[in-house]
Amino acid sequence: MKIIRSVRQMQSHCRILAANGKSIALVPTMGFLHEGHLSLIRKAGKLCDRVITSIFVNPTQFAANEDFSRYPRDEKSDLAKIKKAGGDVVFIPKAKDIYPDNFQTFVDVQKLTRTLEGNVRPGHFLAVATIVAKLFNITRPDVAIFGMKDYQQAIVLKQMTSDLNYPIRFVIAPTVREKDGLAMSSRNSYFTTEQRKEAVCLYRALRRAKVMASENISDLNAIRTDMERVIKSICPTAEIDYIAFTDFESLEPLMTIRKNCICSLAVRLFNVRLIDNMKLL
Amino acid sequence: MKIIRSVRQMQSHCRILAANGKSIALVPTMGFLHEGHLSLIRKAGKLCDRVITSIFVNPTQFAANEDFSRYPRDEKSDLAKIKKAGGDVVFIPKAKDIYPDNFQTFVDVQKLTRTLEGNVRPGHFLAVATIVAKLFNITRPDVAIFGMKDYQQAIVLKQMTSDLNYPIRFVIAPTVREKDGLAMSSRNSYFTTEQRKEAVCLYRALRRAKVMASENISDLNAIRTDMERVIKSICPTAEIDYIAFTDFESLEPLMTIRKNCICSLAVRLFNVRLIDNMKLL
Repeated sequence: MKIIRSVRQMQSHCRILAANGKSIALVPTMGFLHEGHLSLIRKAGKLCDRVITSIFVNPTQFAANEDFSRYPRDEKSDLAKIKKAGGDVVFIPKAKDIYPDNFQTFVDVQKLTRTLEGNVRPGHFLAVATIVAKLFNITRPDVAIFGMKDYQQAIVLKQMTSDLNYPIRFVIAPTVREKDGLAMSSRNSYFTTEQRKEAVCLYRALRRAKVMASENISDLNAIRTDMERVIKSICPTAEIDYIAFTDFESLEPLMTIRKNCICSLAVRLFNVRLIDNMKLL
Repeated sequence: MKIIRSVRQMQSHCRILAANGKSIALVPTMGFLHEGHLSLIRKAGKLCDRVITSIFVNPTQFAANEDFSRYPRDEKSDLAKIKKAGGDVVFIPKAKDIYPDNFQTFVDVQKLTRTLEGNVRPGHFLAVATIVAKLFNITRPDVAIFGMKDYQQAIVLKQMTSDLNYPIRFVIAPTVREKDGLAMSSRNSYFTTEQRKEAVCLYRALRRAKVMASENISDLNAIRTDMERVIKSICPTAEIDYIAFTDFESLEPLMTIRKNCICSLAVRLFNVRLIDNMKLL
């Protein structure tokens, strides 16, 4: 497995791969890999000749009050996991090469970033779309794979890929969950064992919503109230950022449950902010 | 010579070229080609195996009060000229394919677009950077060539190319001028023969600035005043948008003449807005 830390070297490596007719899949990550990431790498290996996994904790997508400095990192363990999952190349650029002095270009996906996470984290998706556009240009992949756990991110990046005419097949892969249902996330490592148990409240609330939707309850306020009750009963100190019901593609808020309705939520537990989502119908 | 009107077809054509080891040069234009454009196409032919010329009058880069609808178009004549200049492929996309419903992604080069033309034409460079990023993704060129006449545009796009890590060699080619010195521009076709004579005033003013700079006159106000006098003496009805002295790379305003000083100006003559520039030292 090849480890590349220079942008130029990564570009020339990909140019050679393309010239040799090898198809390339890109799996962008922020490292501290879990089974969710590894499922993307394995899927990538089925779709393309070569899998490039990037590891870059992108500083620009964290606000000043967010967890950039304490975000978990473990390169050695990541490399072992990627190798085992069948990765071919790991791209680990340096922040000063990605954002040199005088860097000033940003990719703005407008409508889709002005809601949900984009509302709570202004500038977040501007930074995410920009770094992914850069990774696309550095690696010129045939396929790019993102996880459904960060589903607004996936929808935003899919729109960018299409709007900017990247000749890239955009794949969104299912969320991988722990045994109790908690969506895998590098941020789960912030919890103590006791706190971790309560973190299941997001999943439990989503399950409740899904059951209610399947029982033809279409009143979203009733569903939201029940979800809040589920969360508070499991984790009394939880603070709910939002519980939203939107169209899966357009992210537009829905007034009632209907096909392609996805429920997404963001909750703060013990100073850790988690997100999750589930398609209801 | 191949004419391609579909984005998808253009992408697959370029994919095949790359797979066959052919290098690609892209020359983006808005059509109504003159000797300036043709010099870019000829230069491109020297640098790469295949030259793609795009023709697209990009609606988003014109403000409501600007000349989008009357902008000159002559596809048949353009095709003949490109063929003669050695072009291999002409890409003529449709606006509805470039900007489908729900299009919402824009590329913002921040600092460099907030001055000169960007000041007078808000949103202009956002649209220019976006369409060029799209053309880069559609054609994945090895080399892209732009003319020095639109020099801020060239500097902005060069920054975008570097900031977003496009693996593209960015070439800026010299302005081609008419016999009297007027910079070639599709917009020169708006003038009557009499008006056309007065349009030389931009070039004459720039020459005056260059002569003064070579005489070690470093007071920019003195030079600007003389330039205004030159313009008004040739075309009494001319309205000057700006005469600016900036650093060639950073576009930062200069307080005195020094190395890498470029003078650029925008003038309205007979309801036509022209720009031009000249390096003074």
